[in-house]
Amino acid sequence: MPHPLIDHIRRMVELAPEEEAEILSFFEPVTARKKYILARAGETSPDLYFVAEGCIRLFHLSERGAEQTIQFAIEGWWLTDFSAFPTQQCSEFTIQALEKSELLAISAARHELLLARFPQLERYFRLIYQRAYGASQVRLKYQHDLSREEMYRRFASSYPQFTQRIPQYLLASFLGFTPEYLSELRKKRS
Amino acid sequence: MPHPLIDHIRRMVELAPEEEAEILSFFEPVTARKKYILARAGETSPDLYFVAEGCIRLFHLSERGAEQTIQFAIEGWWLTDFSAFPTQQCSEFTIQALEKSELLAISAARHELLLARFPQLERYFRLIYQRAYGASQVRLKYQHDLSREEMYRRFASSYPQFTQRIPQYLLASFLGFTPEYLSELRKKRS
Repeated sequence: MPHPLIDHIRRMVELAPEEEAEILSFFEPVTARKKYILARAGETSPDLYFVAEGCIRLFHLSERGAEQTIQFAIEGWWLTDFSAFPTQQCSEFTIQALEKSELLAISAARHELLLARFPQLERYFRLIYQRAYGASQVRLKYQHDLSREEMYRRFASSYPQFTQRIPQYLLASFLGFTPEYLSELRKKRS
Repeated sequence: MPHPLIDHIRRMVELAPEEEAEILSFFEPVTARKKYILARAGETSPDLYFVAEGCIRLFHLSERGAEQTIQFAIEGWWLTDFSAFPTQQCSEFTIQALEKSELLAISAARHELLLARFPQLERYFRLIYQRAYGASQVRLKYQHDLSREEMYRRFASSYPQFTQRIPQYLLASFLGFTPEYLSELRKKRS
């Protein structure tokens, strides 16, 4: 059975069977236990992560010392600090596993080598980033437009797989709520 | 003198001189007068726009009927609704010229043809979207982390060319302020 990354790439670009193993050889497989810190803000230039299994998040410490989650990634998603990654600067964000996770990690330098060897992956990543950027525009619209309750309902119906797996206090921080407010919303619905 | 788009592409990928005219032939040059609506929310699948000269914005109407600006684009920037564009759905956003602008427009179908003819442009757009997506992560961090005053200062120092050209009431809406509050901040600084 091909690796989940190969499946994911094949949905967008063609690969010859003999290219699979070589593509995977550019990545480092990482098994991260729950709560494991993959990259810490201010300490390191982050790798780019593909989630084969599990769930990871990108967060930063607010000036009040609270952990503010910016993004979650589950199976088939990519995650890093996309400003720090290509320039190999220190990240402003911390990346952490929320569940035991099976990941593929790649450094910026090896990512460039991968793309030089397999130029058809430029198209794959162009499509991934185009979609992610589009989603960020919609997220900005919702932030402006929806009440907190509507935002939660929209998120829960768009991403039920996240709502079920992610601890309530993290989901609340991601949506800009207090955990108490999210708990009220959930009770209201049930 | 080569077109600003050709200059922009050459900063990231190599082009042969004879490719320039053919690349440009995929685009439709558009001269938009100030306030001209290039694509209206709910009416049309938007083109992708490159700004050669001028300034355009992406906005939506909030439920209270206010125009909420999500993004500005000046010389060398790309703008569209990146969720609606590739799927050729109706846009949730309106795109409008803020100054008399010289643009290059391309439909999603022609964009695919362009990339099939010049696969090296996959890399160019991958790099554009990667950077844009990284900037959207930083924007989310600032929204959580900075006071309104700090957000304005950060925006003004990172993008002085925007702060000078964009009408104050639009900048205020983009930053989530009232025009009165922005005016106070500007007075405080001077």
